[in-house]
Amino acid sequence: MLDHLAERILNSEKNAIARGISLVENESKQAGELLKLLYKNTGKAYLIGITGPPGAGKSTITNALSKVLRGKGYKIGIIAVDPTSPFTGGALLGDRIRMQESGSDKDVFIRSMATRGSLGGLAKKAKEACEILDASGKDFIIIETVGVGQSELDIAQTADTTIVVLVPESGDAVQTMKAGLMEIGDIFVINKSDREGSETLGVALRTMLHLKMTRESDREVPVIKTVASKNKGIDELYDFIVRHKEYLETKGKLAKKRRENLLKQINELVNNKLENKFWTEDKKELLEKRISKISEREITPYDFVDELFL
Amino acid sequence: MLDHLAERILNSEKNAIARGISLVENESKQAGELLKLLYKNTGKAYLIGITGPPGAGKSTITNALSKVLRGKGYKIGIIAVDPTSPFTGGALLGDRIRMQESGSDKDVFIRSMATRGSLGGLAKKAKEACEILDASGKDFIIIETVGVGQSELDIAQTADTTIVVLVPESGDAVQTMKAGLMEIGDIFVINKSDREGSETLGVALRTMLHLKMTRESDREVPVIKTVASKNKGIDELYDFIVRHKEYLETKGKLAKKRRENLLKQINELVNNKLENKFWTEDKKELLEKRISKISEREITPYDFVDELFL
Repeated sequence: MLDHLAERILNSEKNAIARGISLVENESKQAGELLKLLYKNTGKAYLIGITGPPGAGKSTITNALSKVLRGKGYKIGIIAVDPTSPFTGGALLGDRIRMQESGSDKDVFIRSMATRGSLGGLAKKAKEACEILDASGKDFIIIETVGVGQSELDIAQTADTTIVVLVPESGDAVQTMKAGLMEIGDIFVINKSDREGSETLGVALRTMLHLKMTRESDREVPVIKTVASKNKGIDELYDFIVRHKEYLETKGKLAKKRRENLLKQINELVNNKLENKFWTEDKKELLEKRISKISEREITPYDFVDELFL
Repeated sequence: MLDHLAERILNSEKNAIARGISLVENESKQAGELLKLLYKNTGKAYLIGITGPPGAGKSTITNALSKVLRGKGYKIGIIAVDPTSPFTGGALLGDRIRMQESGSDKDVFIRSMATRGSLGGLAKKAKEACEILDASGKDFIIIETVGVGQSELDIAQTADTTIVVLVPESGDAVQTMKAGLMEIGDIFVINKSDREGSETLGVALRTMLHLKMTRESDREVPVIKTVASKNKGIDELYDFIVRHKEYLETKGKLAKKRRENLLKQINELVNNKLENKFWTEDKKELLEKRISKISEREITPYDFVDELFL
């Protein structure tokens, strides 16, 4: 049955892709088996990460960018990582509606993934969903995340080209730097750039990009302006993505980066397995029982950990 | 022999404290045993973290602050975490020389810890060194770190009060936010505040502190000015530390924070042990052997991890 599902995914059948991603989201045992079956067909898609604070217009940019990519004949996948967030609820709904437009196009696959359950698990699931889309033959996969917190920075770092989207409202420069987005951005986009503050933000960004240590110190990180709702600047964005892709490919950096990601993935798989196997109900209960005594210095954490490993 | 060493540490003997910290730094098996013997005497010292970019004057502030503390009769320990850094080499040497001044005072213990070896291990060692100083009866322990990178942010978060030290030179606001220091600062200090740019930096900081989510949202994070080399503002700094300490103690936040740190410590001890036990030479060699094949999609990472767990 899984063999058949894998075949259908390789054949780019939407229902099969959807089912595969669901298996991954539900952490089904079959998910692991499915990923094994698909793995040899991965490694071909180019991953674009789009991240930034809520309200920056990421979904609009994703939508506009996918139209450009489709116009050039590319097959694309889109994973929108939706943290369950109290202040973006409405926006998320609107985003999904906008993305429905692409629904009937056979060579576009869109999926929203939400944080129901553990946030840490979400990064792993998003990456596995990308593997499924990769195996199904997509040329580009866009991973859209809100870019807040370690987990989503983690997802962003999986991408080959990471785009950080900002808007000219005050505090955005702060948010960017606070969230560690300065380090991971390969291309910066000032969206809604027809609004006031756009020029100021542009100058601030360029200044900071000069001040900071850049990941690829022989490359200048571009800052571009868009008004995605009016489709302005999107072709330019596509050009910069291609330019970055070529830069990575020419200097062997892409292969190096993906190999590092692979080692990281293996380490995470190992640590996950180790931790899950370790924390049995018994051990968790023991921790509950002992924690107060340790706080009060009646037992040492070291003795307690030794006890766990008996 | 360890019992005797522990006794001498509890008796605040400098040689014994130094030896204990060396055992911890060398990851000696005796270190674990020693920490168990000392643990019930820990939990009394109040931890002050001092962090910020190189050149901000952290050592000068540490020095000046210790004089204030000593003046009030407190016993203090100082751990200076020195990453091996190419551009602060000279400064570090100068710092150590400055700290020698306190060398003859029996109730001040100073130790520099450097990154020879793995950076990740350094956070663990610094915390363990603090436990030794705590057990030896110190009232305050100052942990000084450069505040760059996850490892040192980790150390900073161990502290009860974390002080972020900046100087008015351009780029500092950027560095602060980039490094995630905005989140962990309980008190911000603009040192060398007689220099130009001091007022601008102050305004920028206060603005950003209002914009960001504060850890304790019912407390305003103070920004104060010092010229540590002239001993200006240090008494004020001490007052703010006391104020923060009282705030934490009154609202039960200190106990809560230390308990969270304890759980974190237990988790780290467990994960450390799990990882170390797991990665035997055999397994590491296997990874070396297989990694290219996995890159080339001949084997899947999932199958490889399964193989590791056989």
